[in-house]
Amino acid sequence: MRNKVFTKISGLSAGLLMFCMMANIHAQAPARPAPAFRMPVVIKSAEVSSDNRVTFRVYDKEANKITVSGEWMPGFGGSEPMVKNDTGLFVLTVGPLKPELYAYSFNVDGVRTIDPNNVQVRRDGSRYESFFIIPGGNADLYMHKDGVPHGTVSKIWYNSSVLGMDRRLYVYTPAGYENSKTKYPVFYLLHGAGGDEDAWTNMGREAQIMDNLIAQGKAKPMIVVMTNGNANQAAAQNEVPLSPSQNIMTMEAYRKYAGKFEENMVKDVIPFIEKTYRTLKDRDHRAIAGLSMGGAHTQTITNDNPGVFSYIGVFSMGLMNFGVQNQDTAKANQERSLKIEALRKSNPKVYWIGVGKDDFLYNSVVSLKADLDKHNFKYTYRETPGGHTWANWRIYLSEFAPLLFK
Amino acid sequence: MRNKVFTKISGLSAGLLMFCMMANIHAQAPARPAPAFRMPVVIKSAEVSSDNRVTFRVYDKEANKITVSGEWMPGFGGSEPMVKNDTGLFVLTVGPLKPELYAYSFNVDGVRTIDPNNVQVRRDGSRYESFFIIPGGNADLYMHKDGVPHGTVSKIWYNSSVLGMDRRLYVYTPAGYENSKTKYPVFYLLHGAGGDEDAWTNMGREAQIMDNLIAQGKAKPMIVVMTNGNANQAAAQNEVPLSPSQNIMTMEAYRKYAGKFEENMVKDVIPFIEKTYRTLKDRDHRAIAGLSMGGAHTQTITNDNPGVFSYIGVFSMGLMNFGVQNQDTAKANQERSLKIEALRKSNPKVYWIGVGKDDFLYNSVVSLKADLDKHNFKYTYRETPGGHTWANWRIYLSEFAPLLFK
Repeated sequence: MRNKVFTKISGLSAGLLMFCMMANIHAQAPARPAPAFRMPVVIKSAEVSSDNRVTFRVYDKEANKITVSGEWMPGFGGSEPMVKNDTGLFVLTVGPLKPELYAYSFNVDGVRTIDPNNVQVRRDGSRYESFFIIPGGNADLYMHKDGVPHGTVSKIWYNSSVLGMDRRLYVYTPAGYENSKTKYPVFYLLHGAGGDEDAWTNMGREAQIMDNLIAQGKAKPMIVVMTNGNANQAAAQNEVPLSPSQNIMTMEAYRKYAGKFEENMVKDVIPFIEKTYRTLKDRDHRAIAGLSMGGAHTQTITNDNPGVFSYIGVFSMGLMNFGVQNQDTAKANQERSLKIEALRKSNPKVYWIGVGKDDFLYNSVVSLKADLDKHNFKYTYRETPGGHTWANWRIYLSEFAPLLFK
Repeated sequence: MRNKVFTKISGLSAGLLMFCMMANIHAQAPARPAPAFRMPVVIKSAEVSSDNRVTFRVYDKEANKITVSGEWMPGFGGSEPMVKNDTGLFVLTVGPLKPELYAYSFNVDGVRTIDPNNVQVRRDGSRYESFFIIPGGNADLYMHKDGVPHGTVSKIWYNSSVLGMDRRLYVYTPAGYENSKTKYPVFYLLHGAGGDEDAWTNMGREAQIMDNLIAQGKAKPMIVVMTNGNANQAAAQNEVPLSPSQNIMTMEAYRKYAGKFEENMVKDVIPFIEKTYRTLKDRDHRAIAGLSMGGAHTQTITNDNPGVFSYIGVFSMGLMNFGVQNQDTAKANQERSLKIEALRKSNPKVYWIGVGKDDFLYNSVVSLKADLDKHNFKYTYRETPGGHTWANWRIYLSEFAPLLFK
C-alpha cells in the first residue's frame, strides 16, 4: 500500500502536495476531496558527508545489479557495484574524495541512467550525467555562493553572415552590468568538439567561477561570450534538434565548414557583441581562449588576426594544421611562420598554454611550444595533472581569467 | 570486441572522435597514435514517423524488463513494456499520437530513467523526463523554428527587500530588443507549486511559443518575466541546492512566507524590471498570469493592487483564501468582497480564466466565477479538455498572450 501511494504521487512534489492539500482546505467551495497521502520518503543521493565520503542510494526492489561510474574513478569505464539491502535499497559509499566537481551515472541492469534522486544534472553533448561537488580548494569556485553578487547569463541569437543562419550564443554579464553605464572588456570563451554554446556554463561552471573570482577581487568584471563552435549548428542539439546530416560530421562537411566558424567569430560575433553590449572596443579589452577544438579555433583566429586580441589562451590543444590539410607542408609551415611572426610583433600581453600531463594531445602541445620558442614568442605554460578533462578546463579558466585586462 | 570499443568510446561524441582523429593526422609532431575505432551505432529514440507513431529504442543485453510511461497514457502510472529482440535491443512503437509535446520516462527493472538516446530532456521540479513533439496544431508553437526571429532568455538576479535575499528570475526579451530603442510592455508569468523560475521556459516552452506567436503577428512583442514563486528559495533547486529546511515546506514555513512572494512581486520585481529593461511603465502595459499556485499568487497580487495590471490571467486555479486562513470567514469574505469591488472599478481590460474539465481544482474555479458574477465582474472563461497539466498551460499561454497590450 505504501509503495502504491509512493508510486501514485511520484509525479508530484512535496510542495505541490502541500499546496493541493491547502487548496482543498481553504477553497470556499471545496474541490474534490484530497486523497489521503503519505509524504514520499526522501532518498538522499549523492550525499556528501563532512569527511568527503559520498553515499549513493536508489530504491529498487526489482533490479539485479546497479553500478556507479564516476569521474573519481581512473580511466574510462570504471564502475563499482551498489549493495542491495533487504528493503530493496541499493547503497554505495565511496571516498573520501578530494575537493572537485564529479560527474557520475548509474548503470541499472545494463542501462546507463542519471541518479533519479539527485537534481544536479549536467549535459555533456548528447549525454546527461548527475554530479556533486566536494567543497574546498578550487572546487569552492564552482559552487553557487550566497552573498556573492551573481552575473546574468543570457541566451541570445545573432545573425551570422558567414554561416548564413541565425545562431545562438551565451553571454555572461557581470553583476552590476544592468544598472550602470560602465563599459566592460570581453572574453570570448570557446568549447571543444562534442560541446556547444551551453558547455562552458553547464560543464565548465563559468558563471559560478566568474562570480566568485570577481567577488574575491581576483578577476576584473568582464563580459564572457560563449559561442557554438560547430559551424553546421544553429544552437545546442537540445534546443535545435539535429538534422540527420548533422548527426555525424562527415569529412566532406568538415571541409565545407573549415575555417568558417573562425571567420564568423571575427566578422559576425565580435561586431554583434560590441554593438549589443556596453563594451570596451580595443584589443587590450578583448581576450579569447578555448579548449581542445576551441584551442585550435583560438590559434586560427589569433594567427589570422594579429592585433585583435591582447589576451590569448590555448587549453589542452597544441600545434595543428587545420585548414591547411590540402596544402603541401612546406608552404603551410611557411605561412604559419609568417603568421606567428606577425602575431608576435602585435605583442599580445598574455599567451597562455595549459595542458594535462596525461592529455592525449600532450605531444601536440610540446610541438606548439617548440614552434613558439623558435620564434622567440613569449608564452606562459601551465602543466597540470590529469588529462583532457573538464576538471582541468575549470582550473584553466580559474587561472586564466585573473590574468585578463590588467 | 565491438562491444568493448563501443563501451570505450561511449563518453566521446562522434564529433570529438573525428576531431581527435584529424588532430593526430595533422599535428606536425604526431600525438599518441589514434586508436582504431568504429563509429558508435546511433540508436534513434524517440523517433517520430510521418504518421505520428513514435518508436522508443534502448540497447540492453542485461535488463529483464523495460517499460515506457508517457503523457499520452491516461492518468498517473500507466506504462507499456518494450519488447527485447535477440540482439538485446528493446523496442516499443506507440501511436499514432495527436500533435502535442509528450514527456516520458523509461523504467529499467524498477528504476525510472530518462531515455539515454534522446537529448530532449526537461526538468519538472526535482525529476528529469525525456520528451518529443508531434508536429501540427498548437504543438507547432512549441517547436523551435528556423527563420523565425528568436528572443533572448536571460537568467538575472535581483535583490528582494521583502524576502531579504538575492533571487533569480528569467526574462524573455523579444527578438529585436537589443538593437532598438523601443520600450516594451511586460508580462509577468508565474509557475505553480513544485516549479520555479525555470518552469515556464523548460516545461512551458515559453520562448518558442512567444517567438512563434510574435513572428506570426498574433502577439505583440513583449518582455516576459518569469519569477521563482517559492518565497523560501533564491533560485531553482538545481542552481542553488536546497537546504534541509527547504526540502519540505512545512506549514510553519508556509505561514512565515504567506503573502511574501506576492509582496515581493510588487515591491521588488516590478521596480527592478522597470529600472533594468526598456519598459512601458503604466498599467496598460503590464500583464500578469499564473498557473495553479501562480494563479493564486496572481489573484492575491491583483486583488491587493487594483490598477497595477490591466491584463490578468488565472490558469487552473479558482477561489482560494490563501493568506486569510487564520481569520474568521465572514471577515475574510467581506475583505475579499471589497477587494474584488475595487479591482472591478479599476476596470482591467482582460480578466481571463482557463481550466481543464478534469482539473482537480475545477470546483474552485466554479466558485471563483460565481464570486466574480456576484460582483458583475467581467471575465473571459476558457474550458479545455484534460486536467492540471502543462499541456493545458501551454495552450493557455498561447491563447492569453495574443490578448495582451491591444
